[in-house]
Amino acid sequence: MKVISQNRSFGGEQTVYSHSSETCDCEMTFAVYLPPQAKSGPVPVLWYLSGLTCTHENAMTKGGFQEAAADYGVAVVFPDTSPRGDNVADDDAYDLGQGAGFYVNATRDPWRAHFRMYDYIVDELRDIVLKNFPLQDRHGITGHSMGGHGAITIAIRNADKFGSLSAFAPIAHPTRSDWGRKQLSSYLGDDENTWVAHDATLLLEEHGWKGDLLIDQGADDQFLDLLKPEALANMMAKRRQPGQIRIQEGYDHSYFFVNSFARDHVEWHAERLSQ
Amino acid sequence: MKVISQNRSFGGEQTVYSHSSETCDCEMTFAVYLPPQAKSGPVPVLWYLSGLTCTHENAMTKGGFQEAAADYGVAVVFPDTSPRGDNVADDDAYDLGQGAGFYVNATRDPWRAHFRMYDYIVDELRDIVLKNFPLQDRHGITGHSMGGHGAITIAIRNADKFGSLSAFAPIAHPTRSDWGRKQLSSYLGDDENTWVAHDATLLLEEHGWKGDLLIDQGADDQFLDLLKPEALANMMAKRRQPGQIRIQEGYDHSYFFVNSFARDHVEWHAERLSQ
Repeated sequence: MKVISQNRSFGGEQTVYSHSSETCDCEMTFAVYLPPQAKSGPVPVLWYLSGLTCTHENAMTKGGFQEAAADYGVAVVFPDTSPRGDNVADDDAYDLGQGAGFYVNATRDPWRAHFRMYDYIVDELRDIVLKNFPLQDRHGITGHSMGGHGAITIAIRNADKFGSLSAFAPIAHPTRSDWGRKQLSSYLGDDENTWVAHDATLLLEEHGWKGDLLIDQGADDQFLDLLKPEALANMMAKRRQPGQIRIQEGYDHSYFFVNSFARDHVEWHAERLSQ
Repeated sequence: MKVISQNRSFGGEQTVYSHSSETCDCEMTFAVYLPPQAKSGPVPVLWYLSGLTCTHENAMTKGGFQEAAADYGVAVVFPDTSPRGDNVADDDAYDLGQGAGFYVNATRDPWRAHFRMYDYIVDELRDIVLKNFPLQDRHGITGHSMGGHGAITIAIRNADKFGSLSAFAPIAHPTRSDWGRKQLSSYLGDDENTWVAHDATLLLEEHGWKGDLLIDQGADDQFLDLLKPEALANMMAKRRQPGQIRIQEGYDHSYFFVNSFARDHVEWHAERLSQ
């Protein structure tokens, strides 16, 4: 691992690393925030998955997670959203290819050589951070938009690996949205049966989530039609899934929204991971 | 005034405006954060002046001032750091011309036509925000690096207009630094007598500051040689200036540093402006 940058933040260290990823077969970048408590012993870890067009950097600089993470003694991992590089397939559209990995393992050309963000998050990066940082094997996961989709789908399918779950304005029902059908057909092919494992609403219907679930959604989000929070809300009610969907008046889809509720989510995870 | 963007943040509104500036003779951009308390009545205002290469946007997205501003009921104004545009003089260097106004009124060509950031902040933008937003005529001022220089020099010279003062890693003694001599000679000419009015340490020596003064400075700041905090510390001690310079262990010059102490500064100003 190579250190790209390191900055003290709220008494802890915000560091950016790059490493050669076996899973994605390219150099990958990620950021880790270690709170001051990590100097005296291992701390629980919150994974934050970012949305379309983002890198490891957006939430690290604009999300405002560090202050609450330092208060509660939680580390935060900020992965990138896709493989990257000149040798990695891409598309001119902002919502396909680099910056838009959708947290799946692609099975179709030209994507399958590198686009394996599901395995990268669930296995490779998990092993790397557990091995290299003073972390407890207690993981929470959250994310924004495409990253909210990643958080919910990854947590439900790996409930043994994650103890707490939340999301900010997740893509909640991608098999029925243009944020989903395009990417799932490109990465996985036209057999929609293969898509079900990457749809938060359908996964919740089939498996539920073992704990309670926190979803924040801005009422003035400009992408409500694509996110489909109503599908997730309906499924939570139908399945009697413990948790809450909070519709936040006046908030949009931006990092100003994420920032405004970052502390609530860190607190949510810290409480559940300490039990 | 034209609204460029508006986002809800911590129950308030973070808005970016552009307007035609008489002082700078060009279109200027600035941002204002109004906390939720501004819906029920006028609130005090904190000015945040940014550093070299910054626009109105850096501190607005990375500084993390909104959470504390909402807690304390303080508005925050984020001006740009220079005039801008194709018709505005510029220089290839990052530290001269656009993005590097240094909070002076230039008297030399090619700068004097537009580079009047001192008057812009002290008079024009002040009048605009007081006229257009629910603000009390109670002003605090802070800033980072070049903006810390701007905050201290503007506050001391306009003590009737500002009730509280702080700075993050200010350029503290520009008449004796390469961050200063280059710009002051370009904008004001070679007569160093004209520079004295733009040097925090020299102004403090001559006038002092009417209140107490808060300075945060990272111990691992990569620009310590250019910032010269020791000159300001020496002058504060010599003049028995009330206040504190806090040397923050491990912190550098980045926005991770500013972000880590943003709440302290908002609290500092809120307490003094409410008296």
